[in-house]
Amino acid sequence: MHGNIVALTGGVGGAKLVLGLSHILKAEQLTAIVNTGDDFTHLGLPISPDLDTLMYTLAGVVNPETGWGCSDETWNFMQALEQLQAETWFQMGDRDLATHVVRAQLLAKPATLTQVTQTLCEHLSIRTRILPMSDTPVRTQVLTDRGRLDFQHYFVRDRAKPIVQQLEYTGIDKAAPSAAALSALQDPHLAGIVIAPSNPYLSIDPILAVPGMRTALQAAAAPLVAVSPIVGGTALKGPAAKIMSELGIEPSAAAVARHYGELLNGFIADERDRDSVFGANKPDLPLQFHDTIMHTLDDKIRVARTTLNFIQSIGGNRTE
Amino acid sequence: MHGNIVALTGGVGGAKLVLGLSHILKAEQLTAIVNTGDDFTHLGLPISPDLDTLMYTLAGVVNPETGWGCSDETWNFMQALEQLQAETWFQMGDRDLATHVVRAQLLAKPATLTQVTQTLCEHLSIRTRILPMSDTPVRTQVLTDRGRLDFQHYFVRDRAKPIVQQLEYTGIDKAAPSAAALSALQDPHLAGIVIAPSNPYLSIDPILAVPGMRTALQAAAAPLVAVSPIVGGTALKGPAAKIMSELGIEPSAAAVARHYGELLNGFIADERDRDSVFGANKPDLPLQFHDTIMHTLDDKIRVARTTLNFIQSIGGNRTE
Repeated sequence: MHGNIVALTGGVGGAKLVLGLSHILKAEQLTAIVNTGDDFTHLGLPISPDLDTLMYTLAGVVNPETGWGCSDETWNFMQALEQLQAETWFQMGDRDLATHVVRAQLLAKPATLTQVTQTLCEHLSIRTRILPMSDTPVRTQVLTDRGRLDFQHYFVRDRAKPIVQQLEYTGIDKAAPSAAALSALQDPHLAGIVIAPSNPYLSIDPILAVPGMRTALQAAAAPLVAVSPIVGGTALKGPAAKIMSELGIEPSAAAVARHYGELLNGFIADERDRDSVFGANKPDLPLQFHDTIMHTLDDKIRVARTTLNFIQSIGGNRTE
Repeated sequence: MHGNIVALTGGVGGAKLVLGLSHILKAEQLTAIVNTGDDFTHLGLPISPDLDTLMYTLAGVVNPETGWGCSDETWNFMQALEQLQAETWFQMGDRDLATHVVRAQLLAKPATLTQVTQTLCEHLSIRTRILPMSDTPVRTQVLTDRGRLDFQHYFVRDRAKPIVQQLEYTGIDKAAPSAAALSALQDPHLAGIVIAPSNPYLSIDPILAVPGMRTALQAAAAPLVAVSPIVGGTALKGPAAKIMSELGIEPSAAAVARHYGELLNGFIADERDRDSVFGANKPDLPLQFHDTIMHTLDDKIRVARTTLNFIQSIGGNRTE
């Protein structure tokens, strides 16, 4: 395909589609703009879970069992932490830890998170451009029945069990899209934007909430399509469906399409939802149904190819 | 034995004697005042090599092959660091790393190095008191034929190969003995002070150079004895003999005794040096000859017992 693609993505689920895209597109054609609302400082180390998952996935070193962390990982640091009675609810493998320590070093030079991520990617021989949504810290806060929780406390420590009432993105008012992210969206060779099948509330909304991001997406000279993370009324991974229910939204691909609303120029739902989900309320936008479950690399490439074909078909028919 | 013992010590060699002492004395009888001139910040983490060696040795988790670091250690963090092209000349094992990360956390609370060390010792179930010589950072600098080097650059990165011309202890002017160290030396129940068989120049001199330390040692109501780290004209471990030669001092137990000079109330040299080293220049102070080589735990306990007996004999004969 001609032209460049930007993907907006969170961690595990989104990274699968980005990996698929990276197998079809040339490296210089693909840019991932990644959620940093999950970032936090833990044991003095700056952790960027979604950036890390993207990097490990594209570097081919991700743990295939979990979709995050490193393969062939060991946990002796965590074991020793436990003996020292430090916090152990957030798992950092011995290999993974090097990323956080080096990130801390690089940030302290000082450097922006964009620059640091680029350096890490170079060392991991990743040629796809991985960009944080912003160089300004944004921290997702989850207002729950157990009170206000930092994202990782909600997600990892409390295993996403508290009932979500509202989501807030601390620091968002002062945040701006990273210069590189803006530049990717303003690229005249942009052929399409993909919202990856990540959690709409936890992973994509923080990106969309960065002041200036929506405007840049809407101004982009290319169609925007989303791939539904909800299949058959449930999330393939993570608490997306649970959160939607808690927020009073029936979990469905249709609800995801409604959530992204006017940003969308097209929507890809799973073929399992072809007949049922949209029903009579079929949205007034191009729809594509596909087997969106991505277990193998072939699955990921297949979904990526469908997404790119869909974008091309929309781009060709578009009248601006 | 009645009364309390303070040991001044560096890392590996000194820790062996302290371990021996800890098997004879009750926990509350023994205090180790430890060199922190080797401390440095590496990859953003505060490393205290001699404190760590003391802790790991007394906790029974030290690597028996090296005398430093942890047993059953793994090195995946270092491997990942290497891939990220970070500095890898200083080895930090996956288990060992937890100590540095937790130390950084505790220091940032804030807390003094003395308090932090106490907390770490509690978590490692160490009952012997391990004290940094000072809560103020002191950094040993080695002036060499290759220029001025930070201690760890000289010692680890350059493997102690540069020729030493002079040693300096940056920050020493502003340093004071830690309150706990002073209090241990002023203890009316103090029965003796031991200078462990550590490197006199690299490990013991920084302790002695802390303003107020010499005065406190000389004012202490107990004899001070040193155990020679030089046996048969060479150091059992490390560059002590090499450094002495480079500084124009013939490496011998006698030279070590002269180096400590008027601080000493007694000196223990190896029995291999009984006839040769002191020659006609036998110092005017109580001497004890003993097999000071400490391979096994029994060796360490044996040398510790000899040291304590020697202290008792001196203390009994002392007229002040």
